[in-house]
Amino acid sequence: MSLYSAAVASSSSDPVAIIGASGALGFGLAIRLARVGVPIAIGSRDATRAEQAAERARAIVGDGSFSAHENAAAASDAPIVILSVPFRSQSETLTNLKDALSPGQLLIDATVPLAAAVSGKATRMLGVWQGSAAQQAAEMVPEGVRVVSALHTVSAASLTDLEHPLEQDVLVCGEVRADKRDAAELIERIDGLRCVDCGRLEMARTTEAMTALLISVNSRYKAHAGVRLTNLPEQLWQ
Amino acid sequence: MSLYSAAVASSSSDPVAIIGASGALGFGLAIRLARVGVPIAIGSRDATRAEQAAERARAIVGDGSFSAHENAAAASDAPIVILSVPFRSQSETLTNLKDALSPGQLLIDATVPLAAAVSGKATRMLGVWQGSAAQQAAEMVPEGVRVVSALHTVSAASLTDLEHPLEQDVLVCGEVRADKRDAAELIERIDGLRCVDCGRLEMARTTEAMTALLISVNSRYKAHAGVRLTNLPEQLWQ
Repeated sequence: MSLYSAAVASSSSDPVAIIGASGALGFGLAIRLARVGVPIAIGSRDATRAEQAAERARAIVGDGSFSAHENAAAASDAPIVILSVPFRSQSETLTNLKDALSPGQLLIDATVPLAAAVSGKATRMLGVWQGSAAQQAAEMVPEGVRVVSALHTVSAASLTDLEHPLEQDVLVCGEVRADKRDAAELIERIDGLRCVDCGRLEMARTTEAMTALLISVNSRYKAHAGVRLTNLPEQLWQ
Repeated sequence: MSLYSAAVASSSSDPVAIIGASGALGFGLAIRLARVGVPIAIGSRDATRAEQAAERARAIVGDGSFSAHENAAAASDAPIVILSVPFRSQSETLTNLKDALSPGQLLIDATVPLAAAVSGKATRMLGVWQGSAAQQAAEMVPEGVRVVSALHTVSAASLTDLEHPLEQDVLVCGEVRADKRDAAELIERIDGLRCVDCGRLEMARTTEAMTALLISVNSRYKAHAGVRLTNLPEQLWQ
């Protein structure tokens, strides 16, 4: 375990684990991060699918560092873990990660509780008892695991098309400013992504719902829209 | 009554009624619209407060056309009515407008059900039984009044500072595309505002909640942030 305390920034050679990296958003994040030199531990429920995703990723980012694992194995060795699974699998996945996650790790939850999870519309949200998928994640991780919510509104299609300029913001929520800053430091290594501190984890209810709103906008305009907040100061993470 | 059917665009000399124009958002909209030549019927619960707001507006926009009325009188003569009242007054205001509104009028609802309405936080939302304040408005207006949801995320402070470049989007929701286009035509007369069709009225649940999110962002960054959706086509209302 190469864990780090909140006081110590992760080294650029530490791997970032992406749980659900065979999915569209997770895969897009994997190749975007690998392209800027972040070693990626690709996690999937199934080791074969993880290896297939790693091979696809290597074909796109030739000099990227990708290792393939079942989810728990991917998570156990990474200071930062990105959770990018469909909402219908979030709870089960976090249960399966209970023994893999340890205090000090940072979990970036990107789960969106779209009604599509229960055969509803992708423009509608489910009500999550805890308030949001991120709050469900915070409730389920072992004590000491730091949870931040981010990355919901970034289009998987835009991420996967490496030539596509992203030029958008990532809305970050979490209880602890330093945790959000750590997440922002990683995410902002991807060219064109700027992270904005949107407040406490409970605000994830709205940042998650922005995804359904963008799906509605995208279906109207045949687009892959992103979000930008205007009129903010230059320095957002001082 | 100078009503118009959905087939007939409102003339630029028709007044726009702003219900709650003595409030910050309503007042900002009044002066921004008046500055580009839209006659404004300033509505307030109280005729004296309406006249005071009109005087303040005339002092800022010398060549603007402002008339002052109690809410119902303001609404009855305008093809387009902007509802800009605190959520705690929305239902009562709409009840009082029942005899003033007529089929064919367009109501642009800008109400945000912030928890502040019940002494809660301005970064939190109330659950509205109908789904959103806009849907409550749609349920309460007389049959044939067209309801569109818009303008929640535009900062009142930025609107009121006429030198401030707005450079942001207005997220528009509604059941009928033509109604949304009519609202967009009016709103886009304000320099720097671009309207985006975000889908059916039910999506207002999220566009309204964006206000609470921006309040959270603004409190962190001492800013008046706006929303911009990136990566959309040039023409949004063809």
